[in-house]
Amino acid sequence: MAPKFLRPLTAPDAEKGQAVHFGPDRALTLDCGRTLESWTAAYMTYGRLNAERSNAVLICHALTGDQFAASAHPVTAKPGWWDTMVGPGKPIDTDRFFVICANVVGGCMGSSGPAEIDPASGQPYGLTFPLVTVRDMVRAQAMLLDALGIEKLLCVTGGSMGGMQTLQWAASYPQRVVSAVPIACAAKHSAQNIAFHEVGRQAIMADPDWHGGAYHLNGRQPSKGLAVARMAAHITYLSEAALQRKFGRTLQNPGGISFAFEPDFQVESYLHHQGLTFVDRFDANSYLYITRAMDYFDLAADHGGVLAEAFRGCKTRFCIISFTSDWLFPTVENKRIAHALNAAAATVSFVEIETDRGHDAFLLDEPEMFATVRGFLNSVAANLGVAR
Amino acid sequence: MAPKFLRPLTAPDAEKGQAVHFGPDRALTLDCGRTLESWTAAYMTYGRLNAERSNAVLICHALTGDQFAASAHPVTAKPGWWDTMVGPGKPIDTDRFFVICANVVGGCMGSSGPAEIDPASGQPYGLTFPLVTVRDMVRAQAMLLDALGIEKLLCVTGGSMGGMQTLQWAASYPQRVVSAVPIACAAKHSAQNIAFHEVGRQAIMADPDWHGGAYHLNGRQPSKGLAVARMAAHITYLSEAALQRKFGRTLQNPGGISFAFEPDFQVESYLHHQGLTFVDRFDANSYLYITRAMDYFDLAADHGGVLAEAFRGCKTRFCIISFTSDWLFPTVENKRIAHALNAAAATVSFVEIETDRGHDAFLLDEPEMFATVRGFLNSVAANLGVAR
Repeated sequence: MAPKFLRPLTAPDAEKGQAVHFGPDRALTLDCGRTLESWTAAYMTYGRLNAERSNAVLICHALTGDQFAASAHPVTAKPGWWDTMVGPGKPIDTDRFFVICANVVGGCMGSSGPAEIDPASGQPYGLTFPLVTVRDMVRAQAMLLDALGIEKLLCVTGGSMGGMQTLQWAASYPQRVVSAVPIACAAKHSAQNIAFHEVGRQAIMADPDWHGGAYHLNGRQPSKGLAVARMAAHITYLSEAALQRKFGRTLQNPGGISFAFEPDFQVESYLHHQGLTFVDRFDANSYLYITRAMDYFDLAADHGGVLAEAFRGCKTRFCIISFTSDWLFPTVENKRIAHALNAAAATVSFVEIETDRGHDAFLLDEPEMFATVRGFLNSVAANLGVAR
Repeated sequence: MAPKFLRPLTAPDAEKGQAVHFGPDRALTLDCGRTLESWTAAYMTYGRLNAERSNAVLICHALTGDQFAASAHPVTAKPGWWDTMVGPGKPIDTDRFFVICANVVGGCMGSSGPAEIDPASGQPYGLTFPLVTVRDMVRAQAMLLDALGIEKLLCVTGGSMGGMQTLQWAASYPQRVVSAVPIACAAKHSAQNIAFHEVGRQAIMADPDWHGGAYHLNGRQPSKGLAVARMAAHITYLSEAALQRKFGRTLQNPGGISFAFEPDFQVESYLHHQGLTFVDRFDANSYLYITRAMDYFDLAADHGGVLAEAFRGCKTRFCIISFTSDWLFPTVENKRIAHALNAAAATVSFVEIETDRGHDAFLLDEPEMFATVRGFLNSVAANLGVAR
């Protein structure tokens, strides 16, 4: 299969789920000051919107996620990235809720981003696409919901960057968000996380096939650089304990080490696999854009440096979830959000889940997370009178 | 200045300190099964060997260190990497002790390694140099000490990979090691550490200028890949708290973010600087070799899987030092060594030092580490009757 990103995508197509195209009358003004006069929001929905339009749940995806939260990925054919969480009878029950998940602006699965065609030039945007922020992503989602006729969200949720968007939703549109479940996230990106992102970006930009971001012109893509970026990032998604438990020092060849630079240890082969499979489904420029959006995220900074001010007067009910072994967005960062919400007199519950699986726990089979989300949503839905 | 590694070095020269050249009568047989018939050990000494030859202290350097522990680096002109620890009146007092520090085999500061000339071909070894292990490094050091007429070491010490060598010294040559101070290390490299090393190696090997390791042939070196490797590794040498304290989210330009991919945050500029300065002083192939040696290190595996067996009957006195915020070689790994030494009925003391500076604390101004090393060495020296 030819790498997907050698064929710039005219979005949306059959592979991209649903999409709304916005024209100059619904231009998207971005935090950087630039405006997308013509732009696209690609999304998927699961379940049915009820007559009262009161059962909509918005799911926000993480850095390398997309709109395929609960259905097979069109490129990899793998189950949706939150297939364990979203579906009939699952914690986010599509028999009861109408679930929407949109590809973020700046992404590479059909929403406007650097891999998409710039209508002005007929060529992929590449680095001419404006830089976006988490607030821009949320602004675009709000316009998509307007277009879909959904005024209020029963819940907004997501993990990692999805959690950042969840917080931004409550800050930007508190009147539209009945409840919010930010998972494994932070109200600002830490110095260490910025540093790891910068390593990934440097790995991509060091690849000559990156070609200053215009790799569509040379028919190649910076696969090696992007794979290195993914490998480095992937380590941060796990935990030392999980790596020890899954791989330890187990060799590929039980006969012994090779005294060479091919993978000797299973953990090396695993990382190679993570890098290789990622480049088939993700655009390198989009990786630059979205990591930058996460780096820029600092909700308090937008409110005079006081995080509680971001939530002043907010009536949204919050449920915050963190994982004990998550060192990318550790519990302390999640607790800071809870403290700020308390200071803003918001309604908030906080759950720290014991697991050795690190940051990626939010994507995995974590019964306590499922039970927490299920119980919280049932309570919110019951309050709203949403039928079972 | 032309990058140093474009001019393959005939080792040793004036820049490389002292050196011993070994011929076929003192061939170095390596763990991989290959033998270096002709090889070089480059080293530095500080202080004077006493008449009894009882005051020798061997310092083992870390991954990117070298023999210039206590004197200016010939390429960077910066003070020696352990200048705070070693010198007249310092914890490792060169008024009292004779300090030896050798560049490891596989290194790139004059000892035989991939950047040096293969006497058989007259060309740099590149990847034709055999892979080495920590045990090989120690075996080469032992042969160097033989050549220098030093039978017994008052102390062997070092941090990180230097600590691994220290442990290997006590295991391979217990009768030659009166005392040992392994700092911030482990008896085996963890899965997470192997994973980070593999990211660095992949970054180097992804650089087209690496040229299959034969970059001396194209007059270039894989600087971009090596810089990425260094940047990723450097994050692991610090701690989240230290990065937060030193940089936080402070911007390069107080006026605001740039909405571009140039460094916006000071932590990014800092990392860039670390990457750029490193490539001027270090050889990319050597980085591959030495990281591999660390990955392969597993002292228990050489003794039937039981670490205590590595030290059975060992009369060496140990002082183990770890740092609270070191997540590369956390205290728990250092404690495992102490437990194994206890199980082997060896004499061991263990000190965990409170600091937020992460793994790199062993290279920094850490008064408690200095006091510990000073006190321990004084005690060992007094027992041996080494004059003040």
